[in-house]
Amino acid sequence: MSDDSVTLIEVGPRDGLQNEPGELPLAVKQQLVEDLADAGLTVIEAGSFVNPTWVPQMADSEALFAAIARRAGVRYTALTPNLRGFERALAAGADEVAVFAAASESFSQKNINCSIAESIERFRPVMAAAAEAGLPVRGYVSCVLGCPYEGALAPAAVARVTGDLLELGCYEVSLGDTIGVGTAGSMRALLTELLGAFAPAQLAVHCHDSYGQALANILAAVDLGIRRIDAAVAGLGGCPYAPGASGNVATEDVVYLLEGLGLATGIDLDRLIAAGEHISGFLGRPSGSKVARARRSAG
Amino acid sequence: MSDDSVTLIEVGPRDGLQNEPGELPLAVKQQLVEDLADAGLTVIEAGSFVNPTWVPQMADSEALFAAIARRAGVRYTALTPNLRGFERALAAGADEVAVFAAASESFSQKNINCSIAESIERFRPVMAAAAEAGLPVRGYVSCVLGCPYEGALAPAAVARVTGDLLELGCYEVSLGDTIGVGTAGSMRALLTELLGAFAPAQLAVHCHDSYGQALANILAAVDLGIRRIDAAVAGLGGCPYAPGASGNVATEDVVYLLEGLGLATGIDLDRLIAAGEHISGFLGRPSGSKVARARRSAG
Repeated sequence: MSDDSVTLIEVGPRDGLQNEPGELPLAVKQQLVEDLADAGLTVIEAGSFVNPTWVPQMADSEALFAAIARRAGVRYTALTPNLRGFERALAAGADEVAVFAAASESFSQKNINCSIAESIERFRPVMAAAAEAGLPVRGYVSCVLGCPYEGALAPAAVARVTGDLLELGCYEVSLGDTIGVGTAGSMRALLTELLGAFAPAQLAVHCHDSYGQALANILAAVDLGIRRIDAAVAGLGGCPYAPGASGNVATEDVVYLLEGLGLATGIDLDRLIAAGEHISGFLGRPSGSKVARARRSAG
Repeated sequence: MSDDSVTLIEVGPRDGLQNEPGELPLAVKQQLVEDLADAGLTVIEAGSFVNPTWVPQMADSEALFAAIARRAGVRYTALTPNLRGFERALAAGADEVAVFAAASESFSQKNINCSIAESIERFRPVMAAAAEAGLPVRGYVSCVLGCPYEGALAPAAVARVTGDLLELGCYEVSLGDTIGVGTAGSMRALLTELLGAFAPAQLAVHCHDSYGQALANILAAVDLGIRRIDAAVAGLGGCPYAPGASGNVATEDVVYLLEGLGLATGIDLDRLIAAGEHISGFLGRPSGSKVARARRSAG
């Protein structure tokens, strides 16, 4: 990855759809994943192997992995909270898996029902099994710029869990501003701390646009050398028309930002917009991407 | 103005409402302007003295200036395209006026029906009358990062008209990304050119959020030393729910960005959000500010 290109990690089919009301037909999800690969995305988080009781939207992940026509050069990844989930992901043919921890103790307890330290221990067997199977593992850290229960987080707390995940064997850690409260100022403070200990290539950013700050935060990260960015086509995961919509930043809008900075993404924006409008149609609402809406309006 | 504070120029009552469908009762506009001053805005563009045939939404600007209870320390400003407009603004008691030119010849012709050079000549009598009356004059330049007819603009073309307006006697020039196509990359290129010729204090930025890039563009400008930023409460001027909504950047979201960067704005965000929700209610839609919607959703 050269310094003047950026890899987008498309999380719409998983982090996006997981937070949309209702369950979509398998064929619609399959089409979405295939459309995204056709648009040039090279890393697509397609599903999640968690207990379907907790996340019914992802109950069909096995079937989805079986259905999608794989495109060469694309990694189809999955979230795996534990060894059982990893085994399902491996059997389904995931190219990469991800584990997730939180930067805040309260969020860890409420979201995954254990302490941060316990969550790290829980990942050890997953890491061992992944190493044996030869699958790369990505780490997520949530609430890096603020927690709904604890408010602002100390960058040192984020550095600790990031270091734990990298030490466990994750090849990179995706820093999640889960509730979207971060600003360019807090993003810079966090990354300045982290880049004192880790290489830019070990870090990705995962911004939600709840407060409209996602692109500014991504700009701040890119300025500091980050070249791996999570995003969700059409801003999936939060309806653009609902008060307090808290979806992921829209991949289309990130592509527009990055290309404007002279950073290559390898993505065909028109095809990406079409993919986003297609899935938004199934969800019964316009695309959450402003670029998509502006392009459509400009005819 | 110290380096760690920013002045926001609130353009909602003029640039915002001018682009909203329908005409609001005078009392509603008066309440909006007064609410904005109460929230801490110190420069409020309250109206426009243009031909009411062209902009019926602004036909009541005299009445509005007469109605508003003035708050000490606040400048109530108005747009004045020509001497006739200036005389009306002066009689109405405007504290400051603004003239507007375009960076693109095509836009100038289609928007104000004359060439850029002719528009500058047309402003001379306004400048002379304003100097005599002791009123400061602000200059607007539209389409600085792109024109709907000509596409991308050369920074040198923007520098030319900016220089013309400053030479005429404008105390600052507001650089308008009228159609919102700019990116942090093009904003940086433009400002790098302009700051070779003009001081940061002579320049303001005026970003529209059509492509979702406004906050990233403002961050780019602030990083380069710009400390005067136009914004419209609730993102007035474009319905957040309409495809291709192309409103001004929401003042609330700019305040959130700036305070996060440690830049003081002097604005009470809660009061500002309330002012935006109030006017949005009259327009029959939720606030176009993501910060407002997120705060409301968080309870």
